This record gives sequence, C-alpha cells and structure tokens, in this order.
Amino acid sequence: MLKVAVVGTGFIGSVHARNLACHPGAKLVAVSDVNLESAKRIAATTGAKVVADITDIFDNKDIEAVLIATPTNTHVDYLKRAAQAGKAIYCEKPIGLYYQEAEQAASVVRAAGVPVMLGFNRRFDASHMAVKQAIDHGEVGKIEIVQLTSRGPRSPSIEYIKVSGGQMRDQTIHFFDLLRWLTNDEPVQIYAIGATLVNAAIGEAGDVDTSIVSLRMTSGALCQIDSSRRAAYGYDERIEVFGSDGLAESRRQNFRGMSIYKGRKIIEDGLHPGWFERIEQSYYQALDAFIEAIAQGLAPSPSLEDGLKAQLLADQATESLKTGRSVKVVK
Amino acid sequence: MLKVAVVGTGFIGSVHARNLACHPGAKLVAVSDVNLESAKRIAATTGAKVVADITDIFDNKDIEAVLIATPTNTHVDYLKRAAQAGKAIYCEKPIGLYYQEAEQAASVVRAAGVPVMLGFNRRFDASHMAVKQAIDHGEVGKIEIVQLTSRGPRSPSIEYIKVSGGQMRDQTIHFFDLLRWLTNDEPVQIYAIGATLVNAAIGEAGDVDTSIVSLRMTSGALCQIDSSRRAAYGYDERIEVFGSDGLAESRRQNFRGMSIYKGRKIIEDGLHPGWFERIEQSYYQALDAFIEAIAQGLAPSPSLEDGLKAQLLADQATESLKTGRSVKVVK
Amino acid sequence: MLKVAVVGTGFIGSVHARNLACHPGAKLVAVSDVNLESAKRIAATTGAKVVADITDIFDNKDIEAVLIATPTNTHVDYLKRAAQAGKAIYCEKPIGLYYQEAEQAASVVRAAGVPVMLGFNRRFDASHMAVKQAIDHGEVGKIEIVQLTSRGPRSPSIEYIKVSGGQMRDQTIHFFDLLRWLTNDEPVQIYAIGATLVNAAIGEAGDVDTSIVSLRMTSGALCQIDSSRRAAYGYDERIEVFGSDGLAESRRQNFRGMSIYKGRKIIEDGLHPGWFERIEQSYYQALDAFIEAIAQGLAPSPSLEDGLKAQLLADQATESLKTGRSVKVVK
Amino acid sequence: MLKVAVVGTGFIGSVHARNLACHPGAKLVAVSDVNLESAKRIAATTGAKVVADITDIFDNKDIEAVLIATPTNTHVDYLKRAAQAGKAIYCEKPIGLYYQEAEQAASVVRAAGVPVMLGFNRRFDASHMAVKQAIDHGEVGKIEIVQLTSRGPRSPSIEYIKVSGGQMRDQTIHFFDLLRWLTNDEPVQIYAIGATLVNAAIGEAGDVDTSIVSLRMTSGALCQIDSSRRAAYGYDERIEVFGSDGLAESRRQNFRGMSIYKGRKIIEDGLHPGWFERIEQSYYQALDAFIEAIAQGLAPSPSLEDGLKAQLLADQATESLKTGRSVKVVK
Repeated sequence: MLKVAVVGTGFIGSVHARNLACHPGAKLVAVSDVNLESAKRIAATTGAKVVADITDIFDNKDIEAVLIATPTNTHVDYLKRAAQAGKAIYCEKPIGLYYQEAEQAASVVRAAGVPVMLGFNRRFDASHMAVKQAIDHGEVGKIEIVQLTSRGPRSPSIEYIKVSGGQMRDQTIHFFDLLRWLTNDEPVQIYAIGATLVNAAIGEAGDVDTSIVSLRMTSGALCQIDSSRRAAYGYDERIEVFGSDGLAESRRQNFRGMSIYKGRKIIEDGLHPGWFERIEQSYYQALDAFIEAIAQGLAPSPSLEDGLKAQLLADQATESLKTGRSVKVVK
Repeated sequence: MLKVAVVGTGFIGSVHARNLACHPGAKLVAVSDVNLESAKRIAATTGAKVVADITDIFDNKDIEAVLIATPTNTHVDYLKRAAQAGKAIYCEKPIGLYYQEAEQAASVVRAAGVPVMLGFNRRFDASHMAVKQAIDHGEVGKIEIVQLTSRGPRSPSIEYIKVSGGQMRDQTIHFFDLLRWLTNDEPVQIYAIGATLVNAAIGEAGDVDTSIVSLRMTSGALCQIDSSRRAAYGYDERIEVFGSDGLAESRRQNFRGMSIYKGRKIIEDGLHPGWFERIEQSYYQALDAFIEAIAQGLAPSPSLEDGLKAQLLADQATESLKTGRSVKVVK
Repeated sequence: MLKVAVVGTGFIGSVHARNLACHPGAKLVAVSDVNLESAKRIAATTGAKVVADITDIFDNKDIEAVLIATPTNTHVDYLKRAAQAGKAIYCEKPIGLYYQEAEQAASVVRAAGVPVMLGFNRRFDASHMAVKQAIDHGEVGKIEIVQLTSRGPRSPSIEYIKVSGGQMRDQTIHFFDLLRWLTNDEPVQIYAIGATLVNAAIGEAGDVDTSIVSLRMTSGALCQIDSSRRAAYGYDERIEVFGSDGLAESRRQNFRGMSIYKGRKIIEDGLHPGWFERIEQSYYQALDAFIEAIAQGLAPSPSLEDGLKAQLLADQATESLKTGRSVKVVK
Repeated sequence: MLKVAVVGTGFIGSVHARNLACHPGAKLVAVSDVNLESAKRIAATTGAKVVADITDIFDNKDIEAVLIATPTNTHVDYLKRAAQAGKAIYCEKPIGLYYQEAEQAASVVRAAGVPVMLGFNRRFDASHMAVKQAIDHGEVGKIEIVQLTSRGPRSPSIEYIKVSGGQMRDQTIHFFDLLRWLTNDEPVQIYAIGATLVNAAIGEAGDVDTSIVSLRMTSGALCQIDSSRRAAYGYDERIEVFGSDGLAESRRQNFRGMSIYKGRKIIEDGLHPGWFERIEQSYYQALDAFIEAIAQGLAPSPSLEDGLKAQLLADQATESLKTGRSVKVVK
C-alpha cells in the first residue's frame, strides 16, 4: 500500500484524492491546501489527515508519494521540494509556466533520482490506448497523417486565460503529448494559425481561442491539430491516425447510448457535457499506472521529459502563432 | 439483348420499364396497360411500343420475356398465358391472391417449362445480400435467432387493405421469403399476434396493422418478425441473424450521411422516407439477375416455388392471427 | 449517513459493499457471509466489521439497512427476518425461487411496513433511463411494439441452471421488469418458444437456452423478448420502443470508442465482454436511489410488488414454454 | 428536351452520356472522341450519333449544349469554340492546366454570353448538400473551423501525375471549391505542407502524395484540408463544419449497411471501393441542375468563375508547398 499525500484539493486534487481513497494499492494519508476548508471536506469523506503546512508533508517520512495538484505556479517549487525529500511524485501538467523553469525543476528531480510521473492522463483513456495498441501492433502501417481535435464546451475565465500561457500551452499541449506518444515520433516543424472567434476579450488578453496547428514529423508524417475554446455541443475530442495500411480512430463518444427516431431525423443523446465526464476514468487509470510502477520499481510514464517536450512544442507553436512563420523544432 | 414487354405501367411497372430501358442486356420492346395514357407516358421516355391489347404481347413471337406488374388479381391469368406462349416471365409478387390459385398457376407454368422469376427483390438488396454471404460463408455459425423488422411509413388505403389479403400476405410475406432465403431452412411452426393500433378501420376490414410473428425452423432456430403499417420516422427494415459464432446485421439505413451536433444532441438525417427509396436499387439488381439467368440458360431465382412457399407461410400466419393458436406448417 | 450491512459477499455482494464504502450518504458497517474468508477480504478493503452470525446483524439496533446478496434460496428467510427487525431492505432479485414463497415473504414485509427495494438495477442504466424519460415525455407517442434483446456471452454452469428456475426466471425476468417499467403497462397474454441450441445438457436439465417470448399488453401494444445464453460477441442487451410518434432505442454499446478502417472493412472494438462491464454503473445508481429514498422517507422503487409481478410473468412464460400454448396473465 | 452532345467518351464522358440518355429533360444526340471505337460503344447503348470530326458538333445548329469531357489540355480550346458557336456548356474541371489560359478561355466565354457550368459535381452530393443547407439555415452559426478530408484509394499513374499539375490542382482543387461553396467565403491566406510517403516516384516527378493545407478565411474562420493519394481502406471523403452554434458533418459513408459482430469486434462493410462509387449519384444530380438551369434560362452553378477561383487557390497552395511559406491570396 503506497502511502500518498495530495497537495491541492481543488477540483482535480479532489478527484485524485477520491481515486486514491478507493484504490486497493494506495492509502491516502494526508491532504493539504491553502484553503483549509477544502482540505477538510476531502478529509472527511476519505479518512485522510489534514495537514495545514505543506512542509509537514515533505518532512513526514511516512509519506512515500506526493501528488501535486496545486496551481501551476507552485509546481516547480513543490516538485523540487518533494524530489529533495525523496518522495515519488505524480505531478499535474504542466511542469511550470515557462520552459526554462520547467527544465530547471527537471534537473533537480533528475539529480534526486526519484520516480516522477506527469499527469498526461489522456494517454490512459481506454479508446486512445486502443488506438495506440493498434498502431504499435502495426495495424495502420507507417503513419502518414494524424488528425487531432480538441474542442472544449466553454472557454475558461479571462482571468484564467491571462495566466494560462495561451491556448497552445494550456489546451493544445495535451495533444502535442498525444501526438508524440501515438507516433513514437517527434515533430520537426510547426506552423500555427489562430483567431479570436469565441470571445474578443481573449484576443485582447493576447491569446487565441480557435487554432489549427500543422506539424511535420521526423518520419515525414504530417499532423494537424484543431483546438477551440467553445464547442456548442459538448466536449469534442477525437483522434485519427492514418497510415499506409489503414486508419485508426478514437471516435467522438456519446454520453449515453440512446437514440430517438422521429420524423426525418435520428436524434442521439450527444457528446459528454464536459471534458471531465469524457476522461474521468483516465484519471483513475493514470494513478493506477503510477502506483503499479512504484510498486514494481519501474520508471512511471509519461515522464518529466515527456512533459518538457510537450512544453517545448507548445512554446514553439505559440511562436509560430505570433510570427506567422513555420518554426523548426530545436531543443 | 433480351426483348422484354412490360405489362402494367403503374408505379412499379414504370420502375421496371425504366430499368429495362437502361439495362445493356435488355431491350424494352413493348408496354401495355389498361390505362393507355400511362403506357404512352412510359413509351415516350423509353422508346418502347405501346400495345393496347395484351393478347398481342403474348402472340408476338419477337417478345422473349414478359414482366408482369399488373394488379395481383390478374397475375394468375397472365402467368398462365405468358407461360403457354413460351415467354420467360418475371412476375411481381404475390403469385395470386390465394394459395390454391397460385398453386394452380404454378402447375401450368411448370408444365410449360418456361423460366420464371418471382419479384422478391429484397433478396437483391446489397446489404441483405452481404448478410446472406456472411451466413453462407459460415461467419455466424449455426443460426439460432433471426429478427426481422418491417415497418412502413404509412398505411395503404383501406380499399387496398381490403383486397390485400391482410398484413401477412401483403407485407410480412417479403420477410417470410427473406427468412427462408437467409437461413436455407423452412419454418415448422408459426405463431402470430396482431393488433389494430394505427387505424381502427383496418380492424373493421378484418385486418391488423401491427403484428409479431414467432417461428420455429426445422433446424431449431427461432425467428421473430415484427410488422407495422406506420413508422413515424420513415421506412424501417432491419435484419439480424444471430448464430453460434456471431451476429450478422443488415442495419437501418440513413437516407443521407449528414449529422448535426448541437446542444446535448446529435441529429442525423433519418431513414429513407419510404420503402421505394430504401430498396429502389434492388429492383435493378433483381432484373439484372433475371436477364443474366435467361442469357445463361439458368433457372432464375427466387423461383415460383419460393413464391408458393412464402404464400403458404402467410396463409398460416393469418390463420394463427385469427385462432390465437400456433400453427404447424404443413403443405 | 445510512448505516448498512451487506449479507452475502460473493461477486455481487462485494460489488454492493464497495459501492456502499464509496457512497457519501452511506456507511458500510458490517458484512456477513457463510464463507468467512470472503467476508474478511471485503472488510479489509472497506473498513467494515465482519459478522459471523447473521442473526447479530438483524439484532444490531445500530444497523439501519440490510442489503441481501446471498443465494436466492435464502432471500425469503432473510427478507422476513430483516423486515421483522425493522430494517430498510435492498434485496437482490428474485424474491424467492417460487412465486408462492415470494408472495408469502412479501406479506410479512408489507405487515412490517419497512421500505424495500428490489435489485432490478437495469432500470438505473443511464441509457435505459433516457429511453424511459423519452417515453414519459411523449417522444414516442402511444407504444405499439417493444423489442427487448438479452444475450449473455456464456452460459452459467449446469449446476446453476438446475437451481435457477429456468431461463425465464433467471434471465428473462429482468426484461419482464424492464417491459413493465418502460411501458407503464402490464402484459395480458404471453407466448413463449424455446430451444436448446447452445448446450444439450441445458435441455436435459429441463431448461432452454434460446427463447422468444411474445406478449400482448393491456394497451394493445405487442412485445417480443429474445434471450440467449451464449452470444459469441460479448454481452448484448438492447431495447427498442416503437410508438405512434417515433422510436426510442437503447443501443448496443461498444466497450471502447476505437475503430480500424482496413481493406474493405471497418473494425470496431466490440461490445462489453460481459454483463457486468455493461451494467456495472447501474449498481451504484440503484444503491444511490435506495439511499436517497430512505433519506427522504420515500418508498424505494422498484418495489417488492414489482418483483412479484416480474416473477409471475416468468412463471407464466415458463408455463407457455412447456405447454406450447399462449397463457393469459392472471394473478 | 435539351439536345446535348458529349465530346470525350472516356470513363467520365461515358458516365455523362449514360446519364443524359436516361434524363427525361435531355436528349443525347451526338458523341465524339478521338478514339472512334469508344464513341461507337457509347452510341450503341444510348442511340446517339457518332461524330468523327468534333468541328461538326460545334457547327451543328441542332445541338444546343456541349458536354466537354475530353483531356484537360483540350478544355480551353473546346470551351472557346463551343462558346463561339453559342452552345450551352457543361465542362469537366479544371478549366485548363494553367490559370492564365483558364482566365483567357473564361474571357472568351464571358464575351459569348453562353451559360457554362463547371463540373464540380461534389457540390451535388446529397450529404454534402445537406451540410450546405444546414449552414445556410444557420444550424451551425458563424463558421469557425472547417475540416475537409480527401483520400483516394490509390494513386494515379506517374504519367498522369506528371501532367496533372500536382496534387493541389488535381485532387485538392475539389475541396477548395467545396470550402468556398460551404462557407460562402473566400480564403485570404494559405499554407501547405506535403510529403512523398506513398510513392517515391511521385516526389521525383516534383509532386507530393500526402498534404495538409491550412487556410484562413475572410471571416476569420480557419480551415484544414488533408489529402492523400492512397487510403488503404477505400475512398475517404469527409466534411466537418464547426461553428458557434454546432457542428455539421458529411460523414464517411459505408458502401453497404452490413455488420458482423464476432468475438471482441464489430466488423462493418467498409467505405466505397473508389471515388466513383461514392459520388456516382452526384454526376446525375449535377447534370440535372445544368439541364434545369438551361430550361429556366438561369445561369448554372458552379460557374466558370468558381472554376477560376478554385484554380487560383490550387496554384497558390502549390506555391506554398514549394516555398514553405504561407501565401496571401490575391487575384
């Protein structure tokens, strides 16, 4: 039983805390949050201890792993402290707001030699995993075109947008990671176009809300990622990997399996209302993979390096968005 | 080039006439109808000759084949005359209104030895044929359950219902034929329940508009056929063959491939508006099979015997509907 | 927080125990099973107390509700004892092996006046509920045809079959309940045909493994239910409700949302491997409804009377299977 | 009855000839081809007259309309001659090999004032038209992202590739036209990346076989078009129009409606084997629109100007492919 503390009991921290409380291989021993009431609520339903000062978590020898679910601007600090305290770490993405600080945190973690997993939980979605397996089993042959769609049902607040680093770093980054993972390949060239079609205030904040990124991979494969901050029909995430021998697709998914046939129409219950309903299960699966890796003494995946690489791609796509030119991917 | 005359240029006769006019292996030489104007209209667009007296068609040595698309009550007479005149015959279903007269016409045809094909065109629907092929290739293993759905978008007129012989003989008969064809098997027991849910006048005319037929086949397989005279969402025809190794389905088919995602719904363009739009293509394919069989000197299929067998099943299902008891199928 | 004890920690009892342990409105206080090891395993991961003698559960004033998940032959006894002890009861279906004993247990429960919910959890499946809502909102109009499909991926053991009461009482009973619930109507006539196509030993045990039941409802609507003990393609459960204004369907559900396009085929990840994967969520939802009803002082649904009615239908379908005649439904 | 001559009786000319022969509003009076045998074959089954010297077609006062289905390098010449002879013209795309000659031919046609329709038949596909209608009825709101997929099952010959003008001008051009038509908008910026992943010889011929084009529209909407010369699973054409109020999709279409459920898979009959099977119907519909427009004295659509605009986009996408830079669309 891995003894885990969760730092950050906001929305996603609470999800992790509940998943840990239900996991047969883990024990949620402590939770901490600057909002003490939030931490107490989680503690009440999970039986974990509330820790007011996060330092007590890093100092507690009994805690074997720390799950970092605090705001992004604290990740770098907590990653370093948890690593230096010798804890195994599950860290929500992104590593940091900027590539440089992320890279710096990564070197501290590397030096400490602790196992770290980055929370790119979409890799653990059952359907996405099935696509990955199909690719790895050669079902699609040599990959030629990848199409990724990322459309959220509603835009975050302008306050959030302003500190998010922009659409590439906040939203599209998950798909940069999926692209690398699915193809076992790295992009060499990025071109991005964007527009402010949803909310003018997003543009005023220096960001875009609608974008298309084109990428060329080392293998020669081409990729396109479209992202939108507002899908009027729920959460829309789709993967298509086209290769020399076939196409693998992780389809749009209906929320429920109900149809009405009426007049000249067939009306299905639509997509999931939000991203969480669509990928909720993958949070548990990701945690399960982390717990299993630690139990077996293996390096968890996706790694901190995966996090750095996705972050770099997001930076370079942002540059292309701004310059209107295609960018060569160089580390 | 098979020289064909079409007798009966109502709706379905016109379809056959146009298909013949377009078929590279046939020449539509003559059309005849008691409604001379109707025949003339077809002649104008196809280049066929209008024949006022149908006897001239049977007498014309130049005509090799006759396509009978007149009202059911004339089929028996025309079948006999065409057979005695030595014509190849394509006859719209059913052979006759009653099994006895159908059987009698059949013996005349048998004696004449002419090739006859019965217009069970659903056998030539591309999707149904694909199911049949899957079965014949062993994809579903030993057949265990067959589910057939037959729901028309609107009820025929009461006048039509009155002379139709009832839902079993008019509508469900196509599915008795499909069942025999798909399973290469014969029913041994039939039980039918029916109701008048669409239009009380149908009940007053002694018929039902909604029914379920359960059948047991010689092999032990079970079958259910549901029929309705009014589907509020277009023409609904579906086949499901469940066996020891899998399930083959001829799915409900959308009219067009368009979807709208909106709010919490996905709205697809629905089913075909009517039976004709759904199975239009199968009329051409059926004719093509007839022309090909004649060209190669082979017996066309479905045969007159297939027509008799389906007719017998329709009679016996009608009996079960009336008595409320299951009926043993004996010829 | 409702204090609940689970009696019976076999497969389904364990599922209920875990769900109770995770539910914010309930506390799993005790578990009991004749297999003490099984009870201990569940206790270890849920924090519940193990009770060796089930009498101690009924006697314990601190326990407010009992969840009965023991073998069917104990249900009647435990229902009575729990009711007489004044506990709220969630009882797995069926109430008893035979209608008479079920009815007798029901009168004891009625006299005690305790709230009882019968575990027809399929009513809580999200897609089935969406169909029910569509019906209740008038989307399909007046119901005319109901089609229910129940095909399990593999047959239970012959030992189980022998004590199961037969396919109608063990498998089809869920669909008799769904039929009543969906239609807000009662069957008046039942006809069933069955066969032993999967395993001859099932026939030797006096049961069938493949069956079709036709029912006529009070409203005149017709229904067909097909049941099989062996679907070679996973767990297949499907609902179709056809009415004067449209059709509502709870579709076959894919296990995952992955497709491969290859050659002349599209290959989707198939159905759920078993019934549990398909309806797992509905167990939690059913429990949630029970806990909510108790909290609000409302009668939980489905009720014991629902259980009795489904059981009667199963008995009468079994009679029809044996006699080959249609049976009038009279209580 | 519009009297039409078809010049060019290769594959697509033959299709047009047969469609004209069947159309009630047109009469196919003459066919011409440098390959006289080909013209004779078509004449035999349609009743048209064979004309050896194409000049006789332009000179024949009895011919009201000319359908140009000859190789691209003859289009400009025939367009001019047909226009100067006062014929209505249906011209297969593209207008010419190069924009300049196309523009020059267009001015001759404009001067002559004859009605001309360009054969962008995809606009007449029933599902694509349904998407267009949905957009025009405001179903998707303000368009934000358009995704177009164009993947043919196999590459044309290298000989063909060499004279085709490249993938943009030969394949993607149809989708440039669809984009303009669907959005009622014009691109202002184009960026294209391409690769030779299917056949190295295509690269040696200076072309690509796999490409992604990103476009920005005047309205701000973004578009991506992926094109491939080899889909290992049949002909794949897909449209997705995402807007402020919803998404409209013209789905991938199955060739037939058959599914097999087997083991852990559902296997559907796949896509159409080739582009022709997928869009065959649209040829008839396009011709029908042409005949109707002429009959009513209206300008047919898509017009020659539409052809010029698509051709310009193809040129500019080709330039972007070569330079690696995004191109501003200026006429």
